[in-house]
Amino acid sequence: MKKNLAIVLDIGGTNIRLALVSSERGILHKLKEPTTNEPLKTIHRMLEVASEIHTNELAGIGIAVAGIVDRQSGVIVKSPNLLSLNGVNLVSEISQNFNLPVLIDNDANAATYGEKTCGAGMKYENFVMLTLGTGIGGGVVINNDLLPIAAEIGHMTIITNGNKCSCGNTGCLEAHASARAIVDYAITRLKSGLESLLATLYNGNYFKITAQDIYRIALEGDSLARDALREAGKSLGIGIANVVNIFNPQAIILTGGLIGSWNIYVDSAIKEASRRSLPELFTKTTIIPSLLGDDAGIIGAANLVFRRFSQQN
Amino acid sequence: MKKNLAIVLDIGGTNIRLALVSSERGILHKLKEPTTNEPLKTIHRMLEVASEIHTNELAGIGIAVAGIVDRQSGVIVKSPNLLSLNGVNLVSEISQNFNLPVLIDNDANAATYGEKTCGAGMKYENFVMLTLGTGIGGGVVINNDLLPIAAEIGHMTIITNGNKCSCGNTGCLEAHASARAIVDYAITRLKSGLESLLATLYNGNYFKITAQDIYRIALEGDSLARDALREAGKSLGIGIANVVNIFNPQAIILTGGLIGSWNIYVDSAIKEASRRSLPELFTKTTIIPSLLGDDAGIIGAANLVFRRFSQQN
Repeated sequence: MKKNLAIVLDIGGTNIRLALVSSERGILHKLKEPTTNEPLKTIHRMLEVASEIHTNELAGIGIAVAGIVDRQSGVIVKSPNLLSLNGVNLVSEISQNFNLPVLIDNDANAATYGEKTCGAGMKYENFVMLTLGTGIGGGVVINNDLLPIAAEIGHMTIITNGNKCSCGNTGCLEAHASARAIVDYAITRLKSGLESLLATLYNGNYFKITAQDIYRIALEGDSLARDALREAGKSLGIGIANVVNIFNPQAIILTGGLIGSWNIYVDSAIKEASRRSLPELFTKTTIIPSLLGDDAGIIGAANLVFRRFSQQN
Repeated sequence: MKKNLAIVLDIGGTNIRLALVSSERGILHKLKEPTTNEPLKTIHRMLEVASEIHTNELAGIGIAVAGIVDRQSGVIVKSPNLLSLNGVNLVSEISQNFNLPVLIDNDANAATYGEKTCGAGMKYENFVMLTLGTGIGGGVVINNDLLPIAAEIGHMTIITNGNKCSCGNTGCLEAHASARAIVDYAITRLKSGLESLLATLYNGNYFKITAQDIYRIALEGDSLARDALREAGKSLGIGIANVVNIFNPQAIILTGGLIGSWNIYVDSAIKEASRRSLPELFTKTTIIPSLLGDDAGIIGAANLVFRRFSQQN
């Protein structure tokens, strides 16, 4: 009997998603709930739904989580946006309740494997993926395989005395190029009295401004909004240059909400990266958007399950 | 007949070395010549010596070169310190003159493989090596194997508006933490009139000062010399933090002339890295000196030859 179904639990800072994935037909069902400050409760509620799936086609369960995981032990070592999960061994907890093998990986790593197996990375032996959202994550494929490394590319220091990062360090790529960094940049300047159409949004409640708002207003020609995206893009370009010089990948695949503002944010990143990378390596690297978008993590986690467990059941 | 000998050509910015290496008994013979501005002439002269080796125990020839190489084609893509070798295909050139298979790799990568197979990296599945000399190079081992990447860790930008680097970029790790950076730091301050015992060396000819001089004078308590090493060490610490956050290696192995000043330079690097890395990853990383020193590249290149060609002859 071929085991061609996987249950995936995708635990992010904003949403927790449960999916049933077929190795041939992709995502069959998806459930989504907002992440609260009690994610474990939501996770258990969703797993109750999953326990209703009665079929012997299930190969296993894959967990993708926003944070540092210990793949061997199954422990969530540190999840800055899901503090109550720190130290929790979700693999052994879930294994006890399901008669199925369980694996865990970082969400950006799972998404990278998704793009490798079914997305923009299929044709590349070597590529690096960067997830550009509230935070910045990464994953690396070398010789057609996902490297089992942390790949916390968002926490690479690029500016010695730069912005404070959520990780405690200063000058991380994430502190200068993420959606959060773009919004912070804009708010600081609005507060200092700089003029911008952004000041007219939300009755002047700056803290409701999102990176999407900034992009929309930037398209109207607003200087402050354009500067916010361009500055963040320049920082992203430094990150990309470092990735090029270290991994000399055939491609860098960009994903996450921020790639919506490709023509300002990503374009200035590419310009900066071309200045900073070793030219012999940069000219061999293509920079492209992901194909699977938000679903990459779910598809990648499922394919990790099929790869590891399909033979064993 | 077991092929247990390899010829190695180690082409560095300072010296070119030829060696005969046995898979069982290590380095049997070594020849060294200074690198001139006509390295190809020196290389051919040394290869004439090598052509006198008459034995059917030779598995092949391994070339380690300071620069970016294309392992597949055999071309030296870019060697900043050996400009006349840029674009040269040493593999096909040497293959024509020897009836032996030839391979090429970057010298830091070869040295990393040397430490993996016979040195400080033997007991680690995952480690990163940094070569700390006039320049800074790197190599990465994951799952017990050398990653086939550029690993130009020295050209990672760590300080956006930092020092000019030989690669054309600003703020590279190499421009802030190499022996050249340490000497530049000291000379700039001596010229600005700061007092230091360094000013008494070489009859005041600052340009003869070496990183070793700076370490020696630092040990006498000289502030300027100590600052030069500490500042460079802090920059190295940023590079190490980035390596930890990306690769979460079990070990970081340091090699090259600069590790002679471990108690000032490396110690301040470790302090800075511990502040900047994700603590959950940093605590699992050991930072240690290499075991093979200068010979790592020769031994590594020979072992690459044995791995690839021993079975084929």
